[in-house]
Amino acid sequence: MKRNVFVIGIGAGSPDYMTVQAIDALNQVRVFFVPDKGAEKSDLARLRREIIARFAINADYRIVGFDNPVRDSANANYRKGVSDWHDAVEDVYGRLLADQLQEGECGAFLAWGDPSLYDSILRILERLRARGDFELDYEVIPGISSVQALAAAHKIPINRIGEPIMITTGRKLQEGFPDNADSVIVMLDGQAAYKTVDGDMEIFWGAYLGTDDEILVSGRLRDVLDDIERVRREARAKKGWIMDTYLLRKPEGH
Amino acid sequence: MKRNVFVIGIGAGSPDYMTVQAIDALNQVRVFFVPDKGAEKSDLARLRREIIARFAINADYRIVGFDNPVRDSANANYRKGVSDWHDAVEDVYGRLLADQLQEGECGAFLAWGDPSLYDSILRILERLRARGDFELDYEVIPGISSVQALAAAHKIPINRIGEPIMITTGRKLQEGFPDNADSVIVMLDGQAAYKTVDGDMEIFWGAYLGTDDEILVSGRLRDVLDDIERVRREARAKKGWIMDTYLLRKPEGH
Repeated sequence: MKRNVFVIGIGAGSPDYMTVQAIDALNQVRVFFVPDKGAEKSDLARLRREIIARFAINADYRIVGFDNPVRDSANANYRKGVSDWHDAVEDVYGRLLADQLQEGECGAFLAWGDPSLYDSILRILERLRARGDFELDYEVIPGISSVQALAAAHKIPINRIGEPIMITTGRKLQEGFPDNADSVIVMLDGQAAYKTVDGDMEIFWGAYLGTDDEILVSGRLRDVLDDIERVRREARAKKGWIMDTYLLRKPEGH
Repeated sequence: MKRNVFVIGIGAGSPDYMTVQAIDALNQVRVFFVPDKGAEKSDLARLRREIIARFAINADYRIVGFDNPVRDSANANYRKGVSDWHDAVEDVYGRLLADQLQEGECGAFLAWGDPSLYDSILRILERLRARGDFELDYEVIPGISSVQALAAAHKIPINRIGEPIMITTGRKLQEGFPDNADSVIVMLDGQAAYKTVDGDMEIFWGAYLGTDDEILVSGRLRDVLDDIERVRREARAKKGWIMDTYLLRKPEGH
């Protein structure tokens, strides 16, 4: 029996980021696999369930919750830590697909933001397909990423005219600001890596983008650094988790 | 009288990329400004008109066509050429907003893909606001970019695990493949700049992404280069224009 799966990008934050294509896909799904562990995960799981309840018009579906393995962030070898984590996730997803789908039923994973940007799901499915325990086919539905939500909220283009953009992680930014891009978008920054760059940079920062809790700060980095630190600390204390993204831009003419 | 404008990202190619947020915005609009010149422009103008006809439920709107000034690509100074072009576009947009909106009417520009990625519209509006001929307020609605359509069609993540991505132009790629990113997305490539990079690269190429005419080619660059060249030539001859995007990726372990 062949497994058919949708990977549906649900956008970063707002259910209104759902596309017509995503809603159409949602209505072909019989089994939604929804992770539901941890503080951050529980807010995200709630959003996923809201989206399903709001947009899946026929009620002929079921939701299968599961525990997503947690990455061992203490592992000093980042890639090895991620690789071990992927092995664990692959096992969990493999079992879900093997055990929970009946003949002719279509399954779905709802990916936060866009499935192709800093998300493991496509790699996991490719590995499961290569493993060959069962035949697997999947479709990918793009979604509005937090990068786009950030730019729209600040009403800014993310590139300078004809110039490149780099999208990177907090971990990588700590190794230095790239010398070949004047616009750098930073995601997955648990280390507040913006503190390590030149204070003359412009920063466009956002947290909980697209949600009712959205917070925006922008300005010259040295002028707004303390604001961002304070806002981050307060928001994290209040909600138990934070997800933020920002654009760093060299001042014009530098 | 204050001018209120939406900049609505309509996604790259498929009307099904429209988000709920974009559709909601569409239905608040009284005047759609739609450019309608040139071969490419006429296909895009048709898509814009299709989207309006399909999603604007109340018919209480009008469409104002206009001629978008064309950039002088013969100008050897790229930035100067773009800057002159922006001046001309600014004048056209300024007149549209000054002359075509009645009191209380909301205007809209429909941006191909995502308004924040290699699109001039936000810069133009910011300049018009700064110029101060009239009060201007605008909202930005993100849309699915061709980058995301490309990744979804090829079912691939655009980044390697924890690694950065660069988004750049054909013109910039010709100056050399960046040394600090193993995944590079190239847009606006009129020069077939992929011919200038190492043939061992993997390429994921797509044209007319999201449309019925979508074409995909992927593989090792040296193996698929001729295919891409042929497909591009044939498609351009048939349709009169081509819009393509691609991801170049260093082979694993390099």
